[in-house]
Amino acid sequence: MGKVTVENKTLVYPMPAFLIGANVDDKPNFMTAAWSGIAGGTPPMITVAIRHTRYTLKGIKQNMTFSVNVPSVDLVRETDYCGMESGTKTDKVEVCQFKVFYGKLETAPLIEQCPVNLECKVLHILDVGSHALVVGMIEETYVSEDCLTDGKPDVDKVKPISYVVTQSGRRYQALGEVVADAYSIGRELTGAKSD
Amino acid sequence: MGKVTVENKTLVYPMPAFLIGANVDDKPNFMTAAWSGIAGGTPPMITVAIRHTRYTLKGIKQNMTFSVNVPSVDLVRETDYCGMESGTKTDKVEVCQFKVFYGKLETAPLIEQCPVNLECKVLHILDVGSHALVVGMIEETYVSEDCLTDGKPDVDKVKPISYVVTQSGRRYQALGEVVADAYSIGRELTGAKSD
Repeated sequence: MGKVTVENKTLVYPMPAFLIGANVDDKPNFMTAAWSGIAGGTPPMITVAIRHTRYTLKGIKQNMTFSVNVPSVDLVRETDYCGMESGTKTDKVEVCQFKVFYGKLETAPLIEQCPVNLECKVLHILDVGSHALVVGMIEETYVSEDCLTDGKPDVDKVKPISYVVTQSGRRYQALGEVVADAYSIGRELTGAKSD
Repeated sequence: MGKVTVENKTLVYPMPAFLIGANVDDKPNFMTAAWSGIAGGTPPMITVAIRHTRYTLKGIKQNMTFSVNVPSVDLVRETDYCGMESGTKTDKVEVCQFKVFYGKLETAPLIEQCPVNLECKVLHILDVGSHALVVGMIEETYVSEDCLTDGKPDVDKVKPISYVVTQSGRRYQALGEVVADAYSIGRELTGAKSD
C-alpha cells in the first residue's frame, strides 16, 4: 500500500510556533512551543506540552497562569532564540526586547509585539511522560489593532509561523496560498453523493 | 498599547486540518478536526478536542483507539466534506472514496491517500465543557512512500493544509515560503546578547 513507518511518531503538519509566557519568581519569561493545540470551545481551552524541567513550567506552577503568544514572521529570530535558551541563564525579555503587558489575570505576561495573545488559567497539569500537558482555560484573547481589517483579525496581517520538521531539517514557514473556503468546497461531494 | 480583545478566544495560527478516524459499530468513519496538538514526546502523545455528540467520539469510546490523518491540499474537498457531514447520515468513506487500512491496533482506520497517518490508543478522555479532550498515545506513524526524500518525510511532498479563521471567513491554506532554519537564526541574538 506504499506506506512506511517512521521513527518520529509526532510527525504532524502544520505545527505552530508559539511563545509561551509565565512569570517565574515574579519575572516574565518565554519559551517556544510547537506542541500545542486548542482543546475546547465553551469554555475556550488550550493545551501546551512542556518538558518537566523547563523554567517556564516552574512559573506556570507558581501562578497557575500562562500566556500563548502568536508571533509573526517578523519575530522568527526571537521565536527561535526563545526555544534555544533557558530563562535560568538569560533574560529573554531583555535580549528579545519584548514589551510585556499584563491583562486581567495579572500574572500571565503577554508580548505586545506578537499580533495575538491568549491569557490562560491552568485547569489541569497532566503528567504524560517526558512532558507535562498543561490544559488551560483561555480567559482573554488580544489582537494588535494593526492586524485587524474591518475590526476583525486578519491572518494576512498576522503573518503567523509554522514549525516544520522535514527531510532537510527543522524550519519555520509562512502560510501560503489559499486553497479553498471552508464549509464550502466540501459541498461538491454532497452533490456527488446523490449521483 | 494598540491591542483589542476579541470574542473568538480560540484564535491561534496556524491550526491544522486533520481527519480523525474511528471505527463506529465496526465501520470506519472520519471527522475533520482543527483543535488538535502534539502532547508529549516520550511516549509520543496527541490531543484532539471533539464535541461530545460527535459520531466519531462514539467509535473512539467503543474501541479506545483512533487515528489522525494528515491530508494534503489535493484532499481539501474531502477534508471539508468530513467536517460538514455526520457519519450518522452518510458513509463518508464511500463518498470520499477513501482507501482504509489498519495497523497494529487493528481498530483505528487509516486513510491511504493521506500522506501521514498516526495510529493512537486512548489514554485519557477529559471533559472540558463543550468538548471531550481525547489524549492519545501514538503507537505508530505511517508516511506514504511517495512523500519521502532520501528516506525521510518531505513536507514539500506532503503539502499539508492549515485551517484559518480570518476576517473574510474560514478557509484552508497551504504552507508558504521558508522563513528561516530552526535552532539556527536565533543564534544571531545569542551574539547580540554579549554586546
